Amino acid sequence: MQIAMIDDRIVPYEKLEPVYLDRAFYFGDGVYEVLRSYNGRIFALDDHLKRFSNSLAAIDIDTVDINNVRARVLDAFEKANIADARIYFHITRGSAPRSHNWSDDIKPNFFLTVTALGDNSKTKADGIAVSTFPDWRWKRCDIKSLNLLANVLARQDAAKKGCEEAILVNEDGFITEGAGSSFFAVLNDTLRTAPLTSNILPSITRGYVLRAAKSIDMSVIEKPITPDHAKSANELFLAVSTKDIVPVVKFDETVISDGKPGSYTRKLIEQFRKYTH
Amino acid sequence: MQIAMIDDRIVPYEKLEPVYLDRAFYFGDGVYEVLRSYNGRIFALDDHLKRFSNSLAAIDIDTVDINNVRARVLDAFEKANIADARIYFHITRGSAPRSHNWSDDIKPNFFLTVTALGDNSKTKADGIAVSTFPDWRWKRCDIKSLNLLANVLARQDAAKKGCEEAILVNEDGFITEGAGSSFFAVLNDTLRTAPLTSNILPSITRGYVLRAAKSIDMSVIEKPITPDHAKSANELFLAVSTKDIVPVVKFDETVISDGKPGSYTRKLIEQFRKYTH
Repeated sequence: MQIAMIDDRIVPYEKLEPVYLDRAFYFGDGVYEVLRSYNGRIFALDDHLKRFSNSLAAIDIDTVDINNVRARVLDAFEKANIADARIYFHITRGSAPRSHNWSDDIKPNFFLTVTALGDNSKTKADGIAVSTFPDWRWKRCDIKSLNLLANVLARQDAAKKGCEEAILVNEDGFITEGAGSSFFAVLNDTLRTAPLTSNILPSITRGYVLRAAKSIDMSVIEKPITPDHAKSANELFLAVSTKDIVPVVKFDETVISDGKPGSYTRKLIEQFRKYTH
Repeated sequence: MQIAMIDDRIVPYEKLEPVYLDRAFYFGDGVYEVLRSYNGRIFALDDHLKRFSNSLAAIDIDTVDINNVRARVLDAFEKANIADARIYFHITRGSAPRSHNWSDDIKPNFFLTVTALGDNSKTKADGIAVSTFPDWRWKRCDIKSLNLLANVLARQDAAKKGCEEAILVNEDGFITEGAGSSFFAVLNDTLRTAPLTSNILPSITRGYVLRAAKSIDMSVIEKPITPDHAKSANELFLAVSTKDIVPVVKFDETVISDGKPGSYTRKLIEQFRKYTH
């Protein structure tokens, strides 16, 4: 008899619930999005759905109607009735007995949560500390996939060091991005961030930061920097969907400038607020 | 109210079954093993458990008693009573609301299946075709983790081309290994395979192949080769836990030698049989 075992419990293989055969389980075979609402309004839903479509296409999940995803997000958000909510959703390739290959008739699984966001005003006012970690991720970070073990290990390393984010450094010694954020430096009045390549997630928030920079007449250079260069920056900050702009005041052991969020960062936060409110 | 949505079904977040909060789902945060039995006897269980311990340690899951894993494997295998079985098991970091960081008190989840292996005598007699694909995997392939999307996409590409395995080629143009196997070439009476680095899974079967080569006085060079070099090889084969040695008779569009499994490959299969029977 073919069997499965869940912890100490033996189950006939044929009786396994489909969730235990979800390919997310065995392969991380799915893609996801995280977005948020500000005061009852979802921010940048279209941008996130567009990126989600791209991620689905990139891993050959081609049977999803994105309008159906939009309807589910709106329905769940309305039912949850949380003003400042984090909305997470993913689609996996589907459930099937474990095999790398999939068959064309497999049906994708959808999963979503709407949860309350904590207050992050203190984080934004004080800034955070970050630490560096090797960028162990795969070569298609432009796909927002469920293969996130490298990000998880980097973030936990940061937490052990008392830091809130890990800044990933590639084999050439350049910063790609944060484990769950985009990374920005202000160097002599210029905003600097890595360009969008296959090693970078095309962050929605990053796009709005660049737009905000334009609005305040800040010049932007899309070129990666090294950790040493970052330590000498006038200002550093992260961009992340759930918190938009987060000032960075310490980078590994180095305090950035006077250890307080810089003036450009504060201006960009203010500008960003116009998009979200 | 915090909510979750599973396909079209809305569930209060607090009522979600723990399986939906398994970190394997969100991050592929776990490690696995696949092994098999030959005629009622599990092959190389100790080797697999040793590697599993290493994988667990590498991702900081440090609360698992490996003897307990062994007991579960033996118990399930006995209850299944399948002579030629595939045994798959994984341990994930545990179930918790989605957050990259984990807390020290999280409890790992164990999952195992015992299923019947199909007959592979024809595959071994005739050999298979393989095709190349870029090695998109992360930089810690020495860890047997659940982050397998790169492997899945490579294998599906192979299937589309009518091939049974994808051979991964890194950015420097060298073959690392197969999407789910080790890769070997016979070049002028010498066995050639990539050395064990962080980009290679320390395959148990690979170890036994090297032992078999020694037994038949074959010299071995652990150095990677290019696809062009592979096409000019006298023989090619793969090593994989569920099938041990599988001859490769076609590599991309190139037929290898006379298109039949070579004599060294057949000798190694014969030698391998002594270990498994």
